[in-house]
Amino acid sequence: MKDMSDLDGFEVGYDIPALPGMDEAQVQTPCLVLDLDALERNVKKMGDYAAAHGMRHRVHGKMHKSVDVAKLQVEMGGACGVCCQKVSEAEVFARGGIKDVLVSNQVRDPLKIDRMARIPLLGARTLCCVDDLENVADLSAAAQRHGTEIECLVEIDCGAGRCGVTTTPAVVEIAKAVDAAPGLKFAGIQAYQGAMQHMDVYADRKAKIDIAVAQVKDAVDALKAEGLECDIVGGGGTGSYYFESTSGVYNELQCGSYAFMDADYGRILDENGQRIDRGEWENALFILTSVMSHAKADKAIVDAGLKAQSVDSGLPVVFGRDDVEYVKCSDEHGVVMDPTGALKVNDKLKLVPGHCDPTCNVHDWYVGMRGGKVECVWPVSARGKAY
Amino acid sequence: MKDMSDLDGFEVGYDIPALPGMDEAQVQTPCLVLDLDALERNVKKMGDYAAAHGMRHRVHGKMHKSVDVAKLQVEMGGACGVCCQKVSEAEVFARGGIKDVLVSNQVRDPLKIDRMARIPLLGARTLCCVDDLENVADLSAAAQRHGTEIECLVEIDCGAGRCGVTTTPAVVEIAKAVDAAPGLKFAGIQAYQGAMQHMDVYADRKAKIDIAVAQVKDAVDALKAEGLECDIVGGGGTGSYYFESTSGVYNELQCGSYAFMDADYGRILDENGQRIDRGEWENALFILTSVMSHAKADKAIVDAGLKAQSVDSGLPVVFGRDDVEYVKCSDEHGVVMDPTGALKVNDKLKLVPGHCDPTCNVHDWYVGMRGGKVECVWPVSARGKAY
Repeated sequence: MKDMSDLDGFEVGYDIPALPGMDEAQVQTPCLVLDLDALERNVKKMGDYAAAHGMRHRVHGKMHKSVDVAKLQVEMGGACGVCCQKVSEAEVFARGGIKDVLVSNQVRDPLKIDRMARIPLLGARTLCCVDDLENVADLSAAAQRHGTEIECLVEIDCGAGRCGVTTTPAVVEIAKAVDAAPGLKFAGIQAYQGAMQHMDVYADRKAKIDIAVAQVKDAVDALKAEGLECDIVGGGGTGSYYFESTSGVYNELQCGSYAFMDADYGRILDENGQRIDRGEWENALFILTSVMSHAKADKAIVDAGLKAQSVDSGLPVVFGRDDVEYVKCSDEHGVVMDPTGALKVNDKLKLVPGHCDPTCNVHDWYVGMRGGKVECVWPVSARGKAY
Repeated sequence: MKDMSDLDGFEVGYDIPALPGMDEAQVQTPCLVLDLDALERNVKKMGDYAAAHGMRHRVHGKMHKSVDVAKLQVEMGGACGVCCQKVSEAEVFARGGIKDVLVSNQVRDPLKIDRMARIPLLGARTLCCVDDLENVADLSAAAQRHGTEIECLVEIDCGAGRCGVTTTPAVVEIAKAVDAAPGLKFAGIQAYQGAMQHMDVYADRKAKIDIAVAQVKDAVDALKAEGLECDIVGGGGTGSYYFESTSGVYNELQCGSYAFMDADYGRILDENGQRIDRGEWENALFILTSVMSHAKADKAIVDAGLKAQSVDSGLPVVFGRDDVEYVKCSDEHGVVMDPTGALKVNDKLKLVPGHCDPTCNVHDWYVGMRGGKVECVWPVSARGKAY
């Protein structure tokens, strides 16, 4: 938990939305609020699941960009470390005391490679992905220049259609180059199937992961035949972790959204056809918003618009209320239909964001609440770390 | 122009994307880039237009959230001041030296009202909108408490469907209450038709503004009959300013996007059926992005995804190239179709964002470029000022 003295000098309503001890009514909106009880239950539940299935859990720090949340996941959820998507994010986590950091992405720019090669000097095991032979020489030169070691996972595109190679011979070729490169260590495989995580139907998701598992197994076996053991076979998200955990091939999960939940993930269905936000995971992240105008009888205007969230995966959902509905989002305003006139100016609503990752990315702070009181205010430590 | 000494202590690739003097190839991506020549031409052109039509131009600071850009608009574009949407934004502009600041929005939270009432102490004329009688007493009490004056515009909802009253009697009632309230001054009317700005066809936009103008004229006349003169009748955006300027009713424009342009605004058509980004305004804002993976022959993966932009109004468009197309946006990646294999790793592309306002909102810096060199790096001064 952050020491409150760190918050000295911040002005509420100017550069911070709240301070510990405040009531919800005093919190300045729009801002992100964490239900700490729900967050802790989610973190512990996923940690217990991973442990019971003999899996490491490398939590995805790109979702929350918060050193405080990552530490909670390590301490309460048994996480082995974090993954993230940018070198500058990795620096934030390493500077913040996380000891095992994977950039689960390609790092190609010369300055980014150089900065990454210095992360081990902060005391953190440092890993990244590779999908191109040319990259291996650049990574190796940087690690040698700084006298450090970068561990590399060969990235397989197992369905997401972004970075990564698609054939076993390509995996083996890059792995061998890494293994032979001074300053680098071959550490295994990155194989995250990002495209299936949000498919509603459990069986549809399983079918996609079955294909990925077969592809990864083929590569792991071929590497073994070449004498290359995979310390890490990593992947898995909130919509698939049970498949990777029981695959016999993966050994490391990389879940992110489970900790906070959002409206879009919440709509996918578990094995029994139940929404995953109705039992499997709790909504722990909300956009707190206030009614700022009610000049029309049936319409409340709230202060959370496009600058308080990302609507790429749909509009936010008003939490815990069926009588009002968030129906429109413009730059600075949300339109909430209020047919019974239940809302009045300065009333606060909790919105479940459509998509947690890019929504967290626009905020500077998480206001952690328990029992109606602000318990902590955590910085979104890696916000703005886009490089 | 920002003094470079202000940038001391920032690390390139960690908390700033570039420093003055760098070449484009060295700029860390993803980041926002301004074409300073194009920006200056846009700013001067709109300033000249407003002057020629006897209009004041209160530029919309919520679009760029930058004190540096606002100062350019005042100095080079003759702007009379800024409008913005949040009290904390207004504080940033007032602290930055802008002398006339309108919160073109409702301010209802007690702390926000109190903070706003202190803005005149920073040396700035301070205005806000009202659409509710109850608000008048709260604003008056705060201004009296601090011995300051808040000027109030009554907000008319002339088609945007958000804040604002819809009838002339309601306008007059609130204006009279403001006029009678100690610490407040009745300053006129706010009437921005936000819903029509992005309608493609010129005649469709004109039809909507004709309705707004009639509504506003009715209110102005009724106020005059009560002895209440409107110092400000404000509104108008990039898709409509020529209508308000020739209406004989409005006297203040509030344009924002014209300075930077974006892909969604660029698609609307002028009187001659020509896109407004093909002559009327130049693209001055870009997301600079780099190719980070090209493991598939026809697909380049770039480093600007949902955390580098808002896609609420559509995907970004690659500037100046017909051979490649940005077709998919995920959290950290963009997929650029490259059928001829024209791109290679570390190549940079300039993307015209779909929607400039919420895209600027996720970045910390503008990299100002001229002649291929970084000339200045300006902070997005009011980023995170959501309250």
